[in-house]
Amino acid sequence: MAAGRVLATPVVSDVDVPGFDRATMDGYAVMAESTEGATSYNRLPLVVIGDSLPGRPFHGSVGVGQGVRIMTGAPLPLGCDAVLPAEWIENAAVTNATVSALAAVSPGKHVGRQGEDMVRGTTLFQPGRVLRPQDLGVLSSVGLGEVRVFSRPQVRLVVTGDELLPSGSRPHDYRIVDANGPMLAALIERDGGLVDFPGLVPDEHDAILNALHAAADVIIVTGGSSVGIEDLAPTILGRQGDLVIHGIAMRPSSPTGLGRIGHRLVFLLPGNPVSCLCAYDFFAGRAIRALGGRTRAWPYRPIRARLARKISSPIGRLDYARVRVVDGAAEPVAVGGASVLSSTTRADGFVIVPDDIEGFAPGTEVDVWLYG
Amino acid sequence: MAAGRVLATPVVSDVDVPGFDRATMDGYAVMAESTEGATSYNRLPLVVIGDSLPGRPFHGSVGVGQGVRIMTGAPLPLGCDAVLPAEWIENAAVTNATVSALAAVSPGKHVGRQGEDMVRGTTLFQPGRVLRPQDLGVLSSVGLGEVRVFSRPQVRLVVTGDELLPSGSRPHDYRIVDANGPMLAALIERDGGLVDFPGLVPDEHDAILNALHAAADVIIVTGGSSVGIEDLAPTILGRQGDLVIHGIAMRPSSPTGLGRIGHRLVFLLPGNPVSCLCAYDFFAGRAIRALGGRTRAWPYRPIRARLARKISSPIGRLDYARVRVVDGAAEPVAVGGASVLSSTTRADGFVIVPDDIEGFAPGTEVDVWLYG
Repeated sequence: MAAGRVLATPVVSDVDVPGFDRATMDGYAVMAESTEGATSYNRLPLVVIGDSLPGRPFHGSVGVGQGVRIMTGAPLPLGCDAVLPAEWIENAAVTNATVSALAAVSPGKHVGRQGEDMVRGTTLFQPGRVLRPQDLGVLSSVGLGEVRVFSRPQVRLVVTGDELLPSGSRPHDYRIVDANGPMLAALIERDGGLVDFPGLVPDEHDAILNALHAAADVIIVTGGSSVGIEDLAPTILGRQGDLVIHGIAMRPSSPTGLGRIGHRLVFLLPGNPVSCLCAYDFFAGRAIRALGGRTRAWPYRPIRARLARKISSPIGRLDYARVRVVDGAAEPVAVGGASVLSSTTRADGFVIVPDDIEGFAPGTEVDVWLYG
Repeated sequence: MAAGRVLATPVVSDVDVPGFDRATMDGYAVMAESTEGATSYNRLPLVVIGDSLPGRPFHGSVGVGQGVRIMTGAPLPLGCDAVLPAEWIENAAVTNATVSALAAVSPGKHVGRQGEDMVRGTTLFQPGRVLRPQDLGVLSSVGLGEVRVFSRPQVRLVVTGDELLPSGSRPHDYRIVDANGPMLAALIERDGGLVDFPGLVPDEHDAILNALHAAADVIIVTGGSSVGIEDLAPTILGRQGDLVIHGIAMRPSSPTGLGRIGHRLVFLLPGNPVSCLCAYDFFAGRAIRALGGRTRAWPYRPIRARLARKISSPIGRLDYARVRVVDGAAEPVAVGGASVLSSTTRADGFVIVPDDIEGFAPGTEVDVWLYG
């Protein structure tokens, strides 16, 4: 059982917590009427007949004028209906001594009733709940060591591009090192997916064909160039399954493709790393979260900020603009293009320009979705 | 290398990314002057002398009136200073054919310069950076498969209380099941700690003494009752090391203790689970995050909300009030006390009432720290 997993079914407690009335203070368990009228000028005697400790109850019954020394969390003895806190007792002493009550308590005082935390039959959590640390505590309290959660979607990562070297290599000659693989693996894990990334796949028909038939719920294909993405992968996907969408009116990420082979959802992400990040977040990440029972909402925290400079974007195209937040103002990061991944590491987050407007004027208050 | 880890040293790139000039569009690599004056009414011929593909450059040199078919990401051939996009070419054809340029390009057009993403010698990240998915991509690009990160603090979890059953048990008779262990383990992991929780520890001097000397950076002691916490653990800590603080003016969590044995930070958290959660977040969690190079700030997202009802709190005591957020208003969760853990699962978050005010009137706008 782990925090962050998503409940698949409702959880109902089949026990009361606590399972018995208990003291919520250290003191003396009494019948409240034994203390009626007690003040520091009218001390009433209580004969102490035993102790009740957590897990070690007092097994007798308590009558008028009697008391049982009790600790926080310990079971309330039979006959008692209140706890007189230790500070209202004089001559606190050993069992079988007589002590003096300096104050009165009303019935129920400093008593935690059976079921006060959770009553048997109560639905504790609904399906879709992302388990918090304290939820694990509650589940443990009611005796549930295991609960049904959504499976983590299996995601096969297919990184193509003959010019690519595997992550961990040093770039040399005209070869570049795969940036998308490690980035996508971390994004998929963030979204609750289980990553299967056996390594780079050659830009070859049969290699991509095999990868598209991997045992997985989701297949994400990305390339170091447009070769794998714009030619081979869409063609194979179109022949072997359904290429539902290819090409999207957004910048970056326009070459993104979406489809299906059998039960597998297939995402063709652009090889340019900024496009890859953006297309992952817009399409693949949402699908992975939804498959795992999670919300489709952005996994980023939004803040409101005023734009320090304008952002232009033509009508009919959605733009994903990286910004820095400096002194509460959002400054667009001037960048070369979709190949400049460091624009997303220098940026604090991004602003989305919807397709039906021509951008934002300076000073416009916008939502900035924070990466960090 | 994993997202979420914290950089311990600055990271400097010792390579340019890209390591060469490259095309940012599919098209024809040319000397820009070869296209000067070209329009659809003034087509200029280009002799295509080869191909440049990603990772497979054209090895010759390109002169005036010549072009090399080039793909996005491919190295720009010697002699070229621009890329003419494919859509401005007529009669696109095989190598050694002549094609027509329909437009002019200026020098540098559609070329990504060597180092445009990252220049050799640039500091990419400062220490303390919590690595994002895209940071892993950037590090991979510059050939860094490994970087120095802060160690995850080792945290020994000592859960005492003879009335406790281990998590996974069913509560029976007067015994309750440990809620704090699973909750604290999840909180420690959230804060970047490595949890060592070998199981429940008896409320006995030697068992607690041994646990306090465990190999760990941080020791967190909590009890199912006040026995272990308020008596044994503080006494042993005071004798074996330093009990720096014991008792804090806050509700819940007043019995919290802080101290040190050798290099180990020791936190004595109350056994009542709400107090335990609150004291963990106020004290232990911050220390664990700081030891791991992270911010001490709350790991919760704040929102502003108006209080639906008042919260009272005496001057001189800080209060941790659980609230639900309903239609944008914060409603204090009516609860029995610190033993009612379900108050923190029914709540959406909490409000902190500082010790120098008497609470908040209805309608006050407050910060709500969201659990979820």
